[in-house]
Amino acid sequence: MKIVVICSGGMDSVTLLYHLASIDHEVVALSVNYGQKHLRELEFAKMHADKLGVDFQLADLTGITHLLQGSALTDSSIAVPDGHYEDETMKATVVPNRNMIMLSVAIGYAISIKADAVAYGAHAGDHAVYPDCRPQFADAMEEVAALADWREIKLLRPFVLMTKTRIALEAAKLGVDLATTWSCYRGGKTHCGTCGTCVERKEAIELAGLIDPTVYSEQEL
Amino acid sequence: MKIVVICSGGMDSVTLLYHLASIDHEVVALSVNYGQKHLRELEFAKMHADKLGVDFQLADLTGITHLLQGSALTDSSIAVPDGHYEDETMKATVVPNRNMIMLSVAIGYAISIKADAVAYGAHAGDHAVYPDCRPQFADAMEEVAALADWREIKLLRPFVLMTKTRIALEAAKLGVDLATTWSCYRGGKTHCGTCGTCVERKEAIELAGLIDPTVYSEQEL
Repeated sequence: MKIVVICSGGMDSVTLLYHLASIDHEVVALSVNYGQKHLRELEFAKMHADKLGVDFQLADLTGITHLLQGSALTDSSIAVPDGHYEDETMKATVVPNRNMIMLSVAIGYAISIKADAVAYGAHAGDHAVYPDCRPQFADAMEEVAALADWREIKLLRPFVLMTKTRIALEAAKLGVDLATTWSCYRGGKTHCGTCGTCVERKEAIELAGLIDPTVYSEQEL
Repeated sequence: MKIVVICSGGMDSVTLLYHLASIDHEVVALSVNYGQKHLRELEFAKMHADKLGVDFQLADLTGITHLLQGSALTDSSIAVPDGHYEDETMKATVVPNRNMIMLSVAIGYAISIKADAVAYGAHAGDHAVYPDCRPQFADAMEEVAALADWREIKLLRPFVLMTKTRIALEAAKLGVDLATTWSCYRGGKTHCGTCGTCVERKEAIELAGLIDPTVYSEQEL
């Protein structure tokens, strides 16, 4: 199967790239620049695609960032909140319709290169604060993906029943170096350790019983 | 109702903009640059938004054009075919997943500005050569639009039961100057008159019994 893998450079999507490549699929990595402060993640996505010897493509959506305002992830005037990733305050990190936009671009690319599917790193711990992480949203997207071309494009969520802790274990099994994956929503040189996604990352790696190679810099902030 | 209207600058979407503005909706025009050869259409979209005194926004998707290859509309190495707009040869003008991508950006913008709906110019004459013009595709998109945010975004296709001829009549009724709408897929200074969309435009205006103000330049090609 030829699969376009949406790869942000975070631990979930990088592990997904390794996972699909390890079971002999032909994978292509697609990263998206939607104007996020943590652009640094994209370097890691490319690094892993290169390491696996798979094609890497960048979708540059900075030409629409001005239309998707109001998110702490893209707007320099809105601070990324600290806290637990399930807190209501995390709603500040929602980018309007981000997932539909990324999926639609990935589906277009899949049609263009005659791939069979698009895969992304949705998992069991996806959060109730993000409307476009709901299973019913993903199910509806599967339907449009099947109709977008004369040839059906499948939407795959191989990790949808796995927790982030289970993904961390999968990463260890596949030899993914977690030190070269990026989670932090802030644009710093190291992970802040206190934003929602850093808290989630730390928790998952700890619960998996792994040594966390991430450099956190709470003290610097 | 606050409505984001996807306006290409063609006769259908410009008429739609006038139509919705005329019935007292708060409309915002959104045009999309996806690397089309006929970029000229966007000038007309802006001109009409300005004339109506409504906000105009441009979504610049040229950062993903390289991912959506194989279309005569965007690829300079592929010629735009002449012929009737229902011919099989028109498949060369399909841009992979264009409609889903445009709709997802428009939905994101609608969420961002707290609009209630996205409207677009789908009509009864939409063609069997375009997979993403099928009614079942549009129905599935309605479902995802309703789930993309906590607040439902409606997808409106006010012209879906109207032929293009009927739209030409509506344009005349609303005082839309068809001379300042753009259909031609070729990147010329005037309409070529022989590509699928020019043929369709000429036919609709003629069947509506209107005088066609379009300058066609078949002889120059």
